[in-house]
Amino acid sequence: MTAVTNDEEQLYYKEITPSGFGIAIKLKKVLFSEQSKYQKVEVLESDSKLGRILTLDDLMMATEGDEYFYHEMIAHIPMINHKCPKDVLVIGGGDGGTVREVLKHKTVEHVVLCEIDKMVIDVSKEYLPTISCKLDDPKVEIRVEDAIKYIEDKKQQFDVILIDSTDPLGPGVGLFTEKFYTNVKEALKPDGIMVAQSESPVAFEEDIKSMYGMLKKVFPIVSSYTSPIPTYPGGYWAWAFCSENVEPLSYIDEERCAEITKQCKIYNKDYHLARFALPTFLDELVE
Amino acid sequence: MTAVTNDEEQLYYKEITPSGFGIAIKLKKVLFSEQSKYQKVEVLESDSKLGRILTLDDLMMATEGDEYFYHEMIAHIPMINHKCPKDVLVIGGGDGGTVREVLKHKTVEHVVLCEIDKMVIDVSKEYLPTISCKLDDPKVEIRVEDAIKYIEDKKQQFDVILIDSTDPLGPGVGLFTEKFYTNVKEALKPDGIMVAQSESPVAFEEDIKSMYGMLKKVFPIVSSYTSPIPTYPGGYWAWAFCSENVEPLSYIDEERCAEITKQCKIYNKDYHLARFALPTFLDELVE
Repeated sequence: MTAVTNDEEQLYYKEITPSGFGIAIKLKKVLFSEQSKYQKVEVLESDSKLGRILTLDDLMMATEGDEYFYHEMIAHIPMINHKCPKDVLVIGGGDGGTVREVLKHKTVEHVVLCEIDKMVIDVSKEYLPTISCKLDDPKVEIRVEDAIKYIEDKKQQFDVILIDSTDPLGPGVGLFTEKFYTNVKEALKPDGIMVAQSESPVAFEEDIKSMYGMLKKVFPIVSSYTSPIPTYPGGYWAWAFCSENVEPLSYIDEERCAEITKQCKIYNKDYHLARFALPTFLDELVE
Repeated sequence: MTAVTNDEEQLYYKEITPSGFGIAIKLKKVLFSEQSKYQKVEVLESDSKLGRILTLDDLMMATEGDEYFYHEMIAHIPMINHKCPKDVLVIGGGDGGTVREVLKHKTVEHVVLCEIDKMVIDVSKEYLPTISCKLDDPKVEIRVEDAIKYIEDKKQQFDVILIDSTDPLGPGVGLFTEKFYTNVKEALKPDGIMVAQSESPVAFEEDIKSMYGMLKKVFPIVSSYTSPIPTYPGGYWAWAFCSENVEPLSYIDEERCAEITKQCKIYNKDYHLARFALPTFLDELVE
């Protein structure tokens, strides 16, 4: 089905998972729609408090109104759990939201954003300034290239790697393989942490199962944490926390935690500590 | 807008909040649709793993596929926090899902279900047997009457009261008033706990603010806990935990906790302990 439909004189963005349910958002108009070399890139103007919406191949990436639900969670859980994250790699995430959150940590010296699709970066800079606002920061190095190639020769270079990918379809599919995760592990310093978005526990059970199966072959430490995201299908999202040596919640940088909390709408210490307590069905799925 | 729409040859249930976004579910057909004395009652057959759906006045009440996200959370958080819940009152909840969860606790001797609309009970018994399955249990007393009247003369009678109401619209509106909460408090024993569904923190901010404002005038102890619900708008729900004397998490009945966990898809001890850690914006909203 197409994502933008005109139902009874009202334009909608609808994203229905293969499970048969999902989200619907009233739209005013389509602001941008083009096929890049890799995917369909669209910016929609919603008729709601969500503001503008970025979609790739008809899959929701971010809305201005609720993007912090996703970006705060992918960034701050591993960053606060790391003693001193200086070098950070963000894979995907061309909208810039994850980079913006990473830069809130004063320890950070260098962030590489490796995004395959230049159109995502350009469109985000033009249409989504509150999300992309830090992409021109001097600490940020933007690499428009395939992360699968980029990571191949990197050894013990990053403190934190965040895989802010699309779903395991289209250009994102190579980011959900054992080989790729192995290269990511080798690109991490020994006390490094990788976090990858790992889909909706209620809409994509099979994807989650296969992804955590692969991750456990590569990393000795693999945990899952979750948080709600109002505009992702199922309303509930999971991230994989992986490391060679660092257990989740084994360390909380109290000072940075307090600083980051002041700058966030979701993140705070208690919320952080509660994130790894999973509902039973998900515990069994990622086991 | 109507909830059931035919978009491009596909029947949908769409529930869009006044904020302009919400949920969409593919439908096969409408199984039941009638106007009761109080509201429009519908049962829809979804074209998804959610199975059948109960709606009241075009608002989602429960789906067969994900109802446990709601019912486990409204019931077990207060029940496990109570030392020995014997007498329980469920207000609303005519589908029977909350009663079913309450009866999993072996301490329970008597559950009153006070539902204003007999049609909800009858339709749930006929179309939603996995949800309504315990409504004929000998411990259950069904009162088809207005909870506002029912509660007026009850004094120190219940250990736990669960307000499993619709939204603060239509027949549910009188269940969101200071006077009603005062009567509920008086109907509780001194160590009693009330839990009320308190809407979506992302779609109904103003409703939440006003509701918690009222609750704090009535109860010395008022806390909020949250959990995802895939098919409620915003995908994320809050419940108010209120008591004269019992702090949330001040007690966990370990034995019952372990027993209940075995019978649940979501609920477990760690998940319970994590529920009161709120995202910052919600902490501020209910403050």
